[in-house]
Amino acid sequence: MTAPLPTGSTIGILGGGQLGRMLSVAASRLGFKTAIFEPGGDCPASHVANFHLQAGYDDIKALEKFGNSVDVLTYEFENIPTEALDALDQIRPIRPGREALRISQDRLTEKTFLRDLGLQTAPFATVDDAASLAQAIETIGTPSILKTRRFGYDGKGQARLTKPEDAEEALAALQGAPAVLEGFVDFTCEISVIAARGTDGRVAAFDPGQNVHEGGILRTTTVPASLPNRVLTDAVLTAGKILNALDYIGVLGVEFFVTPGGLIVNEIAPRVHNSGHWTQNGCMTDQFEQHIRAVAGWPLGDGSRHSDIRMENLIGDDMDRVPALAADPACALHLYGKADTKPGRKMGHANFLVPKD
Amino acid sequence: MTAPLPTGSTIGILGGGQLGRMLSVAASRLGFKTAIFEPGGDCPASHVANFHLQAGYDDIKALEKFGNSVDVLTYEFENIPTEALDALDQIRPIRPGREALRISQDRLTEKTFLRDLGLQTAPFATVDDAASLAQAIETIGTPSILKTRRFGYDGKGQARLTKPEDAEEALAALQGAPAVLEGFVDFTCEISVIAARGTDGRVAAFDPGQNVHEGGILRTTTVPASLPNRVLTDAVLTAGKILNALDYIGVLGVEFFVTPGGLIVNEIAPRVHNSGHWTQNGCMTDQFEQHIRAVAGWPLGDGSRHSDIRMENLIGDDMDRVPALAADPACALHLYGKADTKPGRKMGHANFLVPKD
Repeated sequence: MTAPLPTGSTIGILGGGQLGRMLSVAASRLGFKTAIFEPGGDCPASHVANFHLQAGYDDIKALEKFGNSVDVLTYEFENIPTEALDALDQIRPIRPGREALRISQDRLTEKTFLRDLGLQTAPFATVDDAASLAQAIETIGTPSILKTRRFGYDGKGQARLTKPEDAEEALAALQGAPAVLEGFVDFTCEISVIAARGTDGRVAAFDPGQNVHEGGILRTTTVPASLPNRVLTDAVLTAGKILNALDYIGVLGVEFFVTPGGLIVNEIAPRVHNSGHWTQNGCMTDQFEQHIRAVAGWPLGDGSRHSDIRMENLIGDDMDRVPALAADPACALHLYGKADTKPGRKMGHANFLVPKD
Repeated sequence: MTAPLPTGSTIGILGGGQLGRMLSVAASRLGFKTAIFEPGGDCPASHVANFHLQAGYDDIKALEKFGNSVDVLTYEFENIPTEALDALDQIRPIRPGREALRISQDRLTEKTFLRDLGLQTAPFATVDDAASLAQAIETIGTPSILKTRRFGYDGKGQARLTKPEDAEEALAALQGAPAVLEGFVDFTCEISVIAARGTDGRVAAFDPGQNVHEGGILRTTTVPASLPNRVLTDAVLTAGKILNALDYIGVLGVEFFVTPGGLIVNEIAPRVHNSGHWTQNGCMTDQFEQHIRAVAGWPLGDGSRHSDIRMENLIGDDMDRVPALAADPACALHLYGKADTKPGRKMGHANFLVPKD
């Protein structure tokens, strides 16, 4: 275990979106300063950070300057270019570490890692061209989903195949990017576990949340999930297994499909996760503070759930609902300060207190 | 009722201490930007604000620039010079308004206002010199406390008289500042009410907290207070009466002495208040968000208490306890990011979850 970072230190965050914003706020509660590295201007995290270095991930000089101005590094998204990470990890520790990034940046590597851990995943096969796609379809069948190995998020970089004849169109949609074909999983529902591991190796997990996606984007997360305890315990233990296998430091999100044959790991995200936003109003320590505690080498906090919560994302025109939501006594608003409302853009979320029976 | 401030607007905060810091964080949750006006550098609020204008309250040009860069103005302390307020309220609305500041900036005006409202205060008399002090002692007696009319806080600007012969020394301690002599109140305990009033005239109050002071500085606040409901209801109604009389917008703190003869109003503070910090971990809407909602013309939030909390200030060397507090699962830390620890300086606070019976 490393020495805990003293309060007053600066935590560098790669990425200036809403996750960086809420990490900054959590860091401030523990007396830390934050610095944001983000190519875009007027980004959500910059509104609540000590400073914002606006530069691209190919600007090695800017990255070095950033690394030297902070005490430890973390990130709000996993698709950080390898060259940027190479430059930064010479200077300061990056938490979670490189191995977690290497694995989660590539769907093929991730699924292989999970399978090698003895966990169930959707059936998958590598696709590089028309020939390997044809072979993959033969093994996996349809319906199935072709997904780029890298840089996919919120349903982007995906094409659905309902029948073998969709192959050509799907391949064209991915524009030749290396891909995997994933078999369609017939699941009863989706859950996710937000879990954390400290520098002392201690693991903690929040209660699993039940997720509803629409068009590839998370719509709602509800806690408690309406599933047998056995299933929820299995999910938490699986998350712990992944954290330990990665010698992980920080918060990790693990998405599961719940099926009659057991839990199938859909994907992992080496960061705070949209499906963990409910913790802001459901727990003493939320996922953002938990991540900061881990990254700073502090003991993990208590993530016990004190309330039942339904988190709902506010996407695009959902912002029109803000006046009504502001007047709803059961609703806690969390808006991201984004200047432009666009269709499909996450603008904020609302945590609704669900009365207990 | 004025139109609500749209999310994305900028709220200007006069004062860059811990209250400004926590107001900034609350504003960010509602999608607002914040700007801080504060003479000192590297101030706690600047770490989580969009920008910090560092200038003195006598710098009218800087004040005008500040006013023009924000949409509405509020403050974290009541002792803002009148000239600064004169410059600012030409430009943007100041909430809470001038009347609340005029009254709370001067102990004599404040006590007269409270008495005229039909509320009980400690007996008081004006003191300008040795002769008026002698006369005040004759009316009020000893023990009593001589307090400067203006600029007192955390026990500063006060001198205690245990016997009439202490008059000369007490007067010297206040260095000729206009003062009031307050009669000593024999109270069983101290409570405070943090209440809010919106632009629509609606009033809401948090549960009264029971306070313990040491050396003139708040040490702990505990909710619920261990007092009969009748007393607590009386305190809440009194706070509401004060808010309405002032046509107030924002959060107000009212401190009471509880005596066998009823509640005595000790003082009012036209701002978020140290004794309301427990709301951060006890309510869906905390005092900081409640203040921002009121100042922005939004509906007030739900301040119902979901947990029992004991708030403890971390003063000076209490910072040595941070590692132990960070490891306490019942403790939520709130540190202010102040660079230097000094005796008597508020460095942070801890909210302890008190298990319900």
